[in-house]
Amino acid sequence: MSEDTVTIGVDLGGTNLRVAAFRANGERLRSVAMPTRLADGRAAVLDDMAEAILSLRAELANADFAGVGIGSPGPLELPRGVLRLPPNLPGWDGLELRAEMERRLGEPVWINSDANLAALAEAMHGSGKHFGIDSLCMITLGTGVGGGIILNGHIFAGQNGAAGEIGHGPLIAVGAACGCGARGCLETYASATAIRRQAIERGIGGGTALSAAELGALADSGDPEARRLFAHVGHCLGLSLANLVNTLNLPLYVIGGGASAAWHLFAPKLFETLRQQSYVYRMSQPDDPLVFEAGKTNVRRAELGSDAGLLGAAMLPLVEKS
Amino acid sequence: MSEDTVTIGVDLGGTNLRVAAFRANGERLRSVAMPTRLADGRAAVLDDMAEAILSLRAELANADFAGVGIGSPGPLELPRGVLRLPPNLPGWDGLELRAEMERRLGEPVWINSDANLAALAEAMHGSGKHFGIDSLCMITLGTGVGGGIILNGHIFAGQNGAAGEIGHGPLIAVGAACGCGARGCLETYASATAIRRQAIERGIGGGTALSAAELGALADSGDPEARRLFAHVGHCLGLSLANLVNTLNLPLYVIGGGASAAWHLFAPKLFETLRQQSYVYRMSQPDDPLVFEAGKTNVRRAELGSDAGLLGAAMLPLVEKS
Repeated sequence: MSEDTVTIGVDLGGTNLRVAAFRANGERLRSVAMPTRLADGRAAVLDDMAEAILSLRAELANADFAGVGIGSPGPLELPRGVLRLPPNLPGWDGLELRAEMERRLGEPVWINSDANLAALAEAMHGSGKHFGIDSLCMITLGTGVGGGIILNGHIFAGQNGAAGEIGHGPLIAVGAACGCGARGCLETYASATAIRRQAIERGIGGGTALSAAELGALADSGDPEARRLFAHVGHCLGLSLANLVNTLNLPLYVIGGGASAAWHLFAPKLFETLRQQSYVYRMSQPDDPLVFEAGKTNVRRAELGSDAGLLGAAMLPLVEKS
Repeated sequence: MSEDTVTIGVDLGGTNLRVAAFRANGERLRSVAMPTRLADGRAAVLDDMAEAILSLRAELANADFAGVGIGSPGPLELPRGVLRLPPNLPGWDGLELRAEMERRLGEPVWINSDANLAALAEAMHGSGKHFGIDSLCMITLGTGVGGGIILNGHIFAGQNGAAGEIGHGPLIAVGAACGCGARGCLETYASATAIRRQAIERGIGGGTALSAAELGALADSGDPEARRLFAHVGHCLGLSLANLVNTLNLPLYVIGGGASAAWHLFAPKLFETLRQQSYVYRMSQPDDPLVFEAGKTNVRRAELGSDAGLLGAAMLPLVEKS
């Protein structure tokens, strides 16, 4: 692989479909975005995706081409690339995403979950690269809570692709019911959706349903209930991180996704709970929790934004081929 | 390494010190056991260990010798092999176990935690070998609760040896205080020590402090309170396993250690809670939870007994050299 190698990534979301070509160094060359036409059926969406990929490839015909990586909402069974009751792609259960796309494109494609790919991008082009680290765990706070684990530069996907399903580890045994069927999952407390739900339960906004961003602004303005809500989010993230730190003992844990914009609101309580609940963290915490220290357990906000999954998808052919 | 290769393992416990020579296939050739003379100071114990190792080596002078592996109570900082406030070796904080033993023996030694080495033995010579699997997670229910993770035949120790500290992940945020400083750790509910404590709290035994084995016999005789206690142990193990299964997605989780003798008493509730709390488990559970199924998430009692840590220590030089 040379510096001129070009790779294509796809971010298949429940709302938008994005396809982009990148150089191996992460530089974006061209991109295409369109709505995910779920109402027109699975084949229409897959055809849109294939058409966009082939069109980008045609524009880059002279480049050294690494391949196509596709990020999909989970649950995704790997290595086959089969969707399993994906909540954000209703009706797609059992779809053989890898086989369908390979048939349309006439070449192998690489597939992984959007959360794993965001973690891969963060390792290769975000905080991992920044600090010279190739093992990390990323928690993505979006509509749901996703997780991804990178070990030695490669996605750790487990035996059938479900590793890193951090959003659905039970934190609070008698907690709120989660869409996954369990109770007290991190996702029911720390996703953007859960932040909105808890604000309504706590009567914040006086009957108006506020977005996570609006709730953050309210907390920034000093509203005590909104501040308590984000502290609770931090407490739940701290409990989840305590389990992760004790189990994985990685050098870096990053929190990304849209709701990570409230990092300054939830991080203080996150670190307080993490210190209380993880002796592994206490043994290995940096002097200042916000300053990276090699050899210690670092917890930070992710450096990449909402394009992390798309970039990670494009990196997948490079990593898997190497 | 040939079938005639000989390797020496050491199990350094807070009560007993055991040293044994094995063939690479796990066959035990000779062993020595003695009390751990903690009262005589660290140097006395290290000297005892070195003397026993050198004596075994002398007896096996003609063999192809792989090396010496030492299992130590944790927390153990790796790869340096330094003890960090080990609760079962009071006064040993900061001891450079690897350097001390290499100086005494005049050759490199391999060091890891007893819980990680029990998992390695279980992978190489227990259920892992039995089912042709080289990735597993083992939970050891002893005086405390230990954990070890084996990925592709190698111990996954994390950046400084603390990975797999499963006994100290918080399960119940307002739970019982643990010796590690946190609250609600698995260890405070599922270790042999915790089983005895909870029996007293529940008034089982009418004022007599019963051992975990006696409590198991009481539950087997039908005592409803004792049965409820073991069901609670199963519930806590199920919560912990739900987090592990969602995070690691491994093919096999094994429960060992002395208190795993009560497997039949806690397993039903363990599987009930695991099914409720882990959608990854539900997606990948075997048809019968007690019958191993390839490609699924299997949870079983460990096949090796109390010698697992000693055997794993002996296997360490073979695995690390390969």
